Amino acid sequence: MSRIEQALSGWVAASPESPTPAALVEAMRYAVLDGGKRLRPLLVLAACEAVNGSAQTALRPACAVELIHAYSLVHDDMPCMDNDVLRRGKPTVHVQFGEAQALLTGDALQALAFELLTPEDGSLDAATQAALCRLLARSAGFEGMAGGQAIDLASVGLPLNSEQLHAMHRLKTGALLQASVMMGATCGTASPAALSALRDYGAAIGLAFQVVDDVLDVTADAATLGKTAGKDAAQDKPTFVSLMGLSASQDYARQLLAQALSSLQASGLENTQALQALADMLVNRQH
Amino acid sequence: MSRIEQALSGWVAASPESPTPAALVEAMRYAVLDGGKRLRPLLVLAACEAVNGSAQTALRPACAVELIHAYSLVHDDMPCMDNDVLRRGKPTVHVQFGEAQALLTGDALQALAFELLTPEDGSLDAATQAALCRLLARSAGFEGMAGGQAIDLASVGLPLNSEQLHAMHRLKTGALLQASVMMGATCGTASPAALSALRDYGAAIGLAFQVVDDVLDVTADAATLGKTAGKDAAQDKPTFVSLMGLSASQDYARQLLAQALSSLQASGLENTQALQALADMLVNRQH
Repeated sequence: MSRIEQALSGWVAASPESPTPAALVEAMRYAVLDGGKRLRPLLVLAACEAVNGSAQTALRPACAVELIHAYSLVHDDMPCMDNDVLRRGKPTVHVQFGEAQALLTGDALQALAFELLTPEDGSLDAATQAALCRLLARSAGFEGMAGGQAIDLASVGLPLNSEQLHAMHRLKTGALLQASVMMGATCGTASPAALSALRDYGAAIGLAFQVVDDVLDVTADAATLGKTAGKDAAQDKPTFVSLMGLSASQDYARQLLAQALSSLQASGLENTQALQALADMLVNRQH
Repeated sequence: MSRIEQALSGWVAASPESPTPAALVEAMRYAVLDGGKRLRPLLVLAACEAVNGSAQTALRPACAVELIHAYSLVHDDMPCMDNDVLRRGKPTVHVQFGEAQALLTGDALQALAFELLTPEDGSLDAATQAALCRLLARSAGFEGMAGGQAIDLASVGLPLNSEQLHAMHRLKTGALLQASVMMGATCGTASPAALSALRDYGAAIGLAFQVVDDVLDVTADAATLGKTAGKDAAQDKPTFVSLMGLSASQDYARQLLAQALSSLQASGLENTQALQALADMLVNRQH
């Protein structure tokens, strides 16, 4: 965690001679630093460990995927989207810095993610850089996270069936979580079978994450969540809880955890302890 | 031009099995297709020609840079930014599709740009993919276009001096135009001296573009521009015209054109006819 925080703090910073306004850099740092569970970076590092890659190599993709996550939160909180005023216990970026700055902050964080993946210092070879950019772009784009947000947007007040709800979350949160795993796996060596098992692991935890999120939106309070609780119900958004009920959703999360762990076993990889622990933490978290 | 339009139309499209809502894809296509001078793609292709690269190779970076440009227009037109309702003679994306969809459209177009640069089909080698992503990310990010937008945001109503105005435009529009040239140059072979001359060419036309934009904002009408005219003055934005006056701005644009052409001569490259023609077109355009 401390390596991730330190690296993010170093990278989300202007070079000394830059004419970029301090306000933009400040808003970017506000959006990224001192908060968040860092689940995605930890997944990158854990997957890298599972394929015997070096943690140093994985640090750039770990931070890149967190920048994409951070940008998505900034934009998602804006008045035209979820209109949320509280995030990680602090005012959201648009409340603190204004809407225009929030828009630019998100845009700049997305670009910075791809900058992190394409260093000139020789710390990542060109093939790895290209593969990482490919994974990140696809998972963030219109057939990934942004597409999932668009399904979300289109579905407010509509009774989604299970298949539609799964499709929404596979894109909206699942794609980036799965990409985190696969980006970590790009930093080492793995057989096609192991990669395929890691992909299954990523899909299972991606879905589990959202199921747990929906559960916590009902069971936790704002102080624990660090954000407004009960928003989904208030906005009449379809959730796993509204579709399946609370108890069945909790069971479903546990099933998905079991699936994730069994995928790790099937991978044939030896160093999957961190991936196991993250899956467990993700399903059993309280916020 | 027709190759660019065709390629953009093919790439800004959902795969058949995608659960991405049609509305998002429609808004993306609306933002990208049937409009625009395609100056940036043409610069990529022209620079590629100058370094004897293949036009086929340059097509992906040409379209990628146009997607970044298109996303920036969508976000820039939003109510929290310039609040513009007319673009290329059509209602802006947020007017046509709503603010939330416009936000997602821009976000998705930025990600798609990096998808275009990282194909798996072998059409671009890994080193080229990485170099293209690097150039594009830097030029779009907080020390490029997004940073320039932030200077713009911070400077409304303030009397910028010449140095500050130049810094704003070097980032806001110059960075992406220069990157277009350098991305094209990445698709072939050029000496360091030739690359440096192309960088100078890119800087000169990038600045000239903005000077001409400021001139046209005063001299052209909305029907010719395809967007609201006189907006800069109405919003009390600093421009080259407000700083230097109209006639001196027109002279300055001609000087920058001469600089751009002299950089091409200094490059030692032989096939720079298209780059020359684009510089000329850009300075002598009426809209």
